[in-house]
Amino acid sequence: MHANPVLAEALRGNWVENRHRGAFILVDAEGAVIASGGDTERPVFPRSAIKSMQALAIFDRHAEEKFHHSQEELALACASHHGEDEHVSGVAHFLGRMGLSAADLECGAHMPTNSKAREALRAEGQPPSPLHNNCSGKHSGMLSVALAMGVPTPGYVEREHAVQQAVRDAVERVVGEKLSEDRCGIDGCSIPTWAAPLRAWALGFARMATGRHLDERQAAGAQALFDAATSHPHLVAGTGHLDTLVMAAFKGRVMQKGGAEGVQCGAIRHKGWGYALKCDDGNMAASHVMVAALLLKYADPDAAQRAVLEQFVRQPIKNVRGNAVGELRAVREAI
Amino acid sequence: MHANPVLAEALRGNWVENRHRGAFILVDAEGAVIASGGDTERPVFPRSAIKSMQALAIFDRHAEEKFHHSQEELALACASHHGEDEHVSGVAHFLGRMGLSAADLECGAHMPTNSKAREALRAEGQPPSPLHNNCSGKHSGMLSVALAMGVPTPGYVEREHAVQQAVRDAVERVVGEKLSEDRCGIDGCSIPTWAAPLRAWALGFARMATGRHLDERQAAGAQALFDAATSHPHLVAGTGHLDTLVMAAFKGRVMQKGGAEGVQCGAIRHKGWGYALKCDDGNMAASHVMVAALLLKYADPDAAQRAVLEQFVRQPIKNVRGNAVGELRAVREAI
Repeated sequence: MHANPVLAEALRGNWVENRHRGAFILVDAEGAVIASGGDTERPVFPRSAIKSMQALAIFDRHAEEKFHHSQEELALACASHHGEDEHVSGVAHFLGRMGLSAADLECGAHMPTNSKAREALRAEGQPPSPLHNNCSGKHSGMLSVALAMGVPTPGYVEREHAVQQAVRDAVERVVGEKLSEDRCGIDGCSIPTWAAPLRAWALGFARMATGRHLDERQAAGAQALFDAATSHPHLVAGTGHLDTLVMAAFKGRVMQKGGAEGVQCGAIRHKGWGYALKCDDGNMAASHVMVAALLLKYADPDAAQRAVLEQFVRQPIKNVRGNAVGELRAVREAI
Repeated sequence: MHANPVLAEALRGNWVENRHRGAFILVDAEGAVIASGGDTERPVFPRSAIKSMQALAIFDRHAEEKFHHSQEELALACASHHGEDEHVSGVAHFLGRMGLSAADLECGAHMPTNSKAREALRAEGQPPSPLHNNCSGKHSGMLSVALAMGVPTPGYVEREHAVQQAVRDAVERVVGEKLSEDRCGIDGCSIPTWAAPLRAWALGFARMATGRHLDERQAAGAQALFDAATSHPHLVAGTGHLDTLVMAAFKGRVMQKGGAEGVQCGAIRHKGWGYALKCDDGNMAASHVMVAALLLKYADPDAAQRAVLEQFVRQPIKNVRGNAVGELRAVREAI
């Protein structure tokens, strides 16, 4: 197999210790390639990076007309949240408003991503609930789709369930190509995930950013979702996370979302461009380095935005005593 | 840069999600290559994988004559232990016997690697001590070298300190080449680490396994260290770890030790072969997959040994609900 380029490397002292290969692509809504590196036709699982795309089913299936989702609820539907108080109470309220509860979530439970939230839960001697699952907002959005469609909610995570069919359809229409059972898996939160080329994911984000080649309902939904996520960036991830800090700094001009195993997707909205990247080995920190380099180069950052991105494009590596002994950094000439 | 081969891959559903490249080499004590893949001349940091090699300074500098290290102490000197009771009490006893304590360790403190030990410490409301640091046994061994040399112990982790000079000298003599300041960094536990080709690390292990090309003192030291580590495999790592399980299963025939950022080194002692491998991206689980494949192919495993290695050569990937949704596995045709 042809090797993708090294896009990030970890230096220890004066020598490179680790190398992270990957591919990236930045396109406009017509599919014209602004920049790319590596094999962007190799199908990759987008994981949580396309939650905003999956949430289009809320609009397609008239759930938004039924429940009038708040901006906060739409942001949570796009989120990989950190299980902080605001996230947990937001999702609980979202479910309660639909007559549902944590018991209806089929995502499973895991400890909060946020360390303080984790410690607080431990101090209370409480196990995590499905509300703490980083995907609980997305699942709540999917439950709203089930209710709007009038289908039973149990099993809504299964590939054959009407909700997942609706999500698949929404995604296929946005990216403009069919997803295939030949490259399908189950995500961490138990819903199906479909591999498709980075080029397709980037194109979908460019279309969502511009509304081009989308029907009116999807175009309006995409704008509502991107507006919600970029207006409530803390709800989409959490304290200190790249997605939150970048979206806050760019004040609506960048939609940015990470997905497990080194995926980053988003849109530079004022340019109408979508992007997608994947670190071949799945390393998240390396994918942060890569996407920071991409946004530094293509998102026209001002000084404040640049400062945020520079926290991520070079990250110190520390030893046990807390001293910097190296750095994880982008291979800038490759991006 | 030429790309190393993909030696491990993570499958999700029916599609490859992540790819891990790397290089490996297996040599005899004369340097004849039994097997290799990828660029084995590219210098890599061996990290903790060469603790047994670093511990040769104990013999070179007559510390063993002064302190008559027990087998358990020698095993701990070779260890990246998990901070379980046996490890912590063993290191405390080792230090106490030399008139030293945890306060003399300069490795820093981190929570135990073992989850039960971590929970127990949290339940007691205690912070970790340097005894819990996975390197505390190695540091104790280095302190024994300082005392035997009659040099002050403070600063023993520094590159210019007599102890680290002794360790560097021991390593250079075993691998048969000079280490260079041009490829030097600081390890997680604050001691210097030097990058050298995988070929050199593998050769050093083959020489330690056979005593060939070593002086008498180093040859005896190498045998004592490998005997200690393989006789006390739980002290070298901990419950459930590959190093411990493999060494226990092979009953002295395999010396196996991992190092941070995807390094694996060791010796197939009954064949007189040394090996070294590095996962390019630093992923530890992928490096376990790789070394398990190497030992399955070249260490003549019996059924019980094969069963241990097969736990590692294919590892299930689970979702939040605990269902297997994929697997991390070796690319067997590449190793």
